[in-house]
Amino acid sequence: MSTVSCYAAHAADAPLVPHHITRREPGAQDVHIDIEFCGVCHTDIHYAKNDWGRSNYPIVPGHEIVGTVKALGAAVNDLRIGQRVAVGCFVGSCHHCSSCEADMEQYCLAGFTATYNSPSPDEGGVTYGGYSKSIVVDRHFVLTVPDNLDPAGAAPLLCAGITTYSPLKHWGVKAGMTVGVIGLGGLGHMGIKFARAMGAHTVMITNSAHKAADAKRLGADDVLLFTDAEAVAKHAGTFDFLLNTIPAPHDVTSYMNLLKVDGTMCIVGSIGPTSDLNSRPLIFGRRSIAGSLVGGIKETQEMLDFCGKHQIVSDIEVIKIDDINQAYERMQTSDVKYRFVIDIARSLS
Amino acid sequence: MSTVSCYAAHAADAPLVPHHITRREPGAQDVHIDIEFCGVCHTDIHYAKNDWGRSNYPIVPGHEIVGTVKALGAAVNDLRIGQRVAVGCFVGSCHHCSSCEADMEQYCLAGFTATYNSPSPDEGGVTYGGYSKSIVVDRHFVLTVPDNLDPAGAAPLLCAGITTYSPLKHWGVKAGMTVGVIGLGGLGHMGIKFARAMGAHTVMITNSAHKAADAKRLGADDVLLFTDAEAVAKHAGTFDFLLNTIPAPHDVTSYMNLLKVDGTMCIVGSIGPTSDLNSRPLIFGRRSIAGSLVGGIKETQEMLDFCGKHQIVSDIEVIKIDDINQAYERMQTSDVKYRFVIDIARSLS
Repeated sequence: MSTVSCYAAHAADAPLVPHHITRREPGAQDVHIDIEFCGVCHTDIHYAKNDWGRSNYPIVPGHEIVGTVKALGAAVNDLRIGQRVAVGCFVGSCHHCSSCEADMEQYCLAGFTATYNSPSPDEGGVTYGGYSKSIVVDRHFVLTVPDNLDPAGAAPLLCAGITTYSPLKHWGVKAGMTVGVIGLGGLGHMGIKFARAMGAHTVMITNSAHKAADAKRLGADDVLLFTDAEAVAKHAGTFDFLLNTIPAPHDVTSYMNLLKVDGTMCIVGSIGPTSDLNSRPLIFGRRSIAGSLVGGIKETQEMLDFCGKHQIVSDIEVIKIDDINQAYERMQTSDVKYRFVIDIARSLS
Repeated sequence: MSTVSCYAAHAADAPLVPHHITRREPGAQDVHIDIEFCGVCHTDIHYAKNDWGRSNYPIVPGHEIVGTVKALGAAVNDLRIGQRVAVGCFVGSCHHCSSCEADMEQYCLAGFTATYNSPSPDEGGVTYGGYSKSIVVDRHFVLTVPDNLDPAGAAPLLCAGITTYSPLKHWGVKAGMTVGVIGLGGLGHMGIKFARAMGAHTVMITNSAHKAADAKRLGADDVLLFTDAEAVAKHAGTFDFLLNTIPAPHDVTSYMNLLKVDGTMCIVGSIGPTSDLNSRPLIFGRRSIAGSLVGGIKETQEMLDFCGKHQIVSDIEVIKIDDINQAYERMQTSDVKYRFVIDIARSLS
């Protein structure tokens, strides 16, 4: 057992404050990781504030973790001390259900063990996340980070990255297709980078005209201002796939006529109840509204390797851990381009 | 040009009454059909009453048509006089768009010509449907009916049948899969017959306990009473595919947790705006809500041949054309098992 420094929320309305937690000793299959960087995800805020009513305080958020190997369990022989590794949104699953056997631990039928706030043998009986000096994780759930990627920019790949990469891959996005990315935030900016790198004609769909320039800088081939009815009508029936990253309730049906016959819009934001659903644009075009949750471990490694090959990282603003409460406030007004990353190594002793 | 007897609605609140229309002479590619039977679809009521605000009066409804060949255009050499044929929901499309080229005329990008109330060279400038002694239709849109099928019971296959057959085929329903059919009416009872004939374990999902016996008579292996929370919980994550035939606004999200990972619920009723949508059950299981509209001509013929092979027709109540207004009233209280079919030949002179 080792006691390490971290930042934790202790109640719904309280700021995150310095805290200490006890991590388990690495077992034979475990990797002990010194955390260098941790991305800040909207989910962290929801749990810190108990928005979903299932927070177990104290909570140590953080599931976009990059660090280096500090120690290895006796049975782990494919990593080396000092190697750059990463941990994403979950650190355990049953390994035996149909989802786990299909490398989709995110849909584990027994429920995955989330990187924080899940039952665990750690002190307090719950997992503690990446706003912490170190973490101990089962080797199966540890990713490796290509050497050519900036480790701070790589951190958000573990959630914002895989959340957008996985549906683009699952629905077969490739050259010759037209893909719309709806919403330009932490997820949307990664969606643009991935869709473009996969070769698709990539269109940023937004209600905010001032986002157009940045969308193009990030790689969008075109920008569709969704408040421009004439432009929307012109684009009707032209998209093979829509990646909807809007994190708040909105009229999802309104986008469906943009899709070709048999097209799919995949929602990756946890929204709802949201506005009325109308089946007509689904029926008249055999279109689908789908959802998707991060990605499995094998696919997350594939995504990191893809990023290494295409030199893709997140656009980030690096902060010290002391700035986390201010960062939460700024995120709630969308004042970040496009992801905060905590420099753990340099700000938490 | 030939003048024929029919029944037509002349205003939103008026009953259907005897009328005469003029059909075009058969062109080289046309088939002139003596109508024997015409099924009565809910869509007919919506158009008769102008529920969708686009009815062109007088309207002659009817798009579940079975009859015999009266005359053939000069270029039609693959049908014979007296042969039993059928016409479904549309009688024209562009033939050149990507949908038409893929045998999906129902998704014609130029818009298909509906069997009634669509622009046409007929008198009045709109198409007139099957509540009529005869109809003239382009050969491409004329189906043949297997000899072993009762022609009255076959009529509803042209809409209720293909509307349920097509999504079951598209989403690959087969032996070894578990399929839920939601709602037991004109569409739902066909959904049960088809899912069962395709080899799936077929479950009727309903809020009405009194429908269980009939569902089993129609072929359902099991019945899930959706008001029984314990039974619903037991069935969570067990369905490969759900066919949602409910024709009224309802909480579509409530069914999604019944699906396995990657499962799809296909809606075939034109509903909306309906109740709130929640993305969580889509995301946590990569599930989809889709829509589907009837089927293409090639697939409709395939469906009719499948029905011939499996001896499938609709459960019907045959009426005379004089009874049509009363039938509409009874349909609006779901008082029909499961489809009215008008005996045109014996009741319209």
